[in-house]
Amino acid sequence: MKEYKGYLIDLDGTMYRGTESIKEAGPFVEELLKRDIPHLFVTNNSSKTAKQVVEKLTSMGIPAEPSRVFTSSMAASKYVDDTTPDATIYMIGEEGLKEALGSRCTLDASEANVVVMGIDRDITYEKLSDAALAVRRGATFISTNGDKAIPTEKGFVPGNGSLTSVISVSTGVDPIFVGKPEAIIMEQALEILGTKRDQTVMVGDNYDTDIMAGIKARIDTIHVATGVTSQEDLKTKTTQPTHTIPTLKEWF
Amino acid sequence: MKEYKGYLIDLDGTMYRGTESIKEAGPFVEELLKRDIPHLFVTNNSSKTAKQVVEKLTSMGIPAEPSRVFTSSMAASKYVDDTTPDATIYMIGEEGLKEALGSRCTLDASEANVVVMGIDRDITYEKLSDAALAVRRGATFISTNGDKAIPTEKGFVPGNGSLTSVISVSTGVDPIFVGKPEAIIMEQALEILGTKRDQTVMVGDNYDTDIMAGIKARIDTIHVATGVTSQEDLKTKTTQPTHTIPTLKEWF
Repeated sequence: MKEYKGYLIDLDGTMYRGTESIKEAGPFVEELLKRDIPHLFVTNNSSKTAKQVVEKLTSMGIPAEPSRVFTSSMAASKYVDDTTPDATIYMIGEEGLKEALGSRCTLDASEANVVVMGIDRDITYEKLSDAALAVRRGATFISTNGDKAIPTEKGFVPGNGSLTSVISVSTGVDPIFVGKPEAIIMEQALEILGTKRDQTVMVGDNYDTDIMAGIKARIDTIHVATGVTSQEDLKTKTTQPTHTIPTLKEWF
Repeated sequence: MKEYKGYLIDLDGTMYRGTESIKEAGPFVEELLKRDIPHLFVTNNSSKTAKQVVEKLTSMGIPAEPSRVFTSSMAASKYVDDTTPDATIYMIGEEGLKEALGSRCTLDASEANVVVMGIDRDITYEKLSDAALAVRRGATFISTNGDKAIPTEKGFVPGNGSLTSVISVSTGVDPIFVGKPEAIIMEQALEILGTKRDQTVMVGDNYDTDIMAGIKARIDTIHVATGVTSQEDLKTKTTQPTHTIPTLKEWF
């Protein structure tokens, strides 16, 4: 087995399942710490701040600290920095996105040259209209992630990719998606982690986001069957992950 | 000029432009009344009741009565009647849709076998989630119309087709659209009007909805250049309307 020098690790389906813990997750991260292997939690969840993510992880017995968390909101913020230094941003999203974008945000969409959209469970027609008008006026249209659905106790409810479609369908402008499986978040994560591409591995449960993100970014991948994609599902895919394991216990 | 025995008439862009009146509209409808020619106002607007539409038309000097109004909400209601006699409906929409669907509606999406979606400027994430869960459970998914954008004083804001995409993208289930340019609303309108297909004409300003609706339903069309589609735009279209006129004054 190749000894990877850096780990990018998905959260939901890999470290926990919604509000339920995954018992193999804590020991896996402890082993990384013991071996002094750099790792970064990389999540499409745009609603939470790094601090809130850490609280959740530690409450489940998984060692974590804010510097080891990288959300799609943080990735969107960095993408805006890199591409639009003079950005005035109209954002739709929750606390994680609001904190990540900070003082560049405006409540007046008419003065925005960038629109950033993340999941917002307080979405209103007015917010959607303001964002659509800004995009029609030429504002750069960025979306934290294209996730179509989010698993909840009730079943799958609309994810940010579905909400984002209101603006893209209405304006005819496709957004720049930042989160997994896009290369944007992966390149940024690699830079933060500081390890070489060919010595880094992406660990995750979801083929369409985590594994595809690794494949697109030419990073090795470990599929773990504790979430969305089963090992059975995996057999139908043309491009396979580098490794697949039933649980994280099977890794070290 | 062919003497049509029945007229299907669009509203926004044809009878008025938003809150602005179109001066040729009143005399045009008066001429139909004078000649005793049956006519029906056919609108994709799902938010208003027939009575509210009549109030708007008469306030602009256009003769109208509720029996001569057919909205996409009324069409959706009739479509549910025709296809699901035992319907329990979870609806997202405004007053026009609520009135049209009436007592078949439930507030508990979990018991719905039909979801009907129309524009709702009080949309919430909870409504969208409930509708998505119902569609995932197998409820028939109907949308009043696929309009991507609505013209307002501020510019184009999201139409019902854009809001509907939240559910279709999230669930992977495409809705049955009822309104123009679909044949569903046109066949129903023809039946209400009671005139023969080859003696009826559809009058409207919007090529993609009004004119395409006529073309799809094999009904002659009159394009009037007082709204969305200009006579210049029209030249780029492969299939032309039967007639095109700058304003309704040029018709009779």
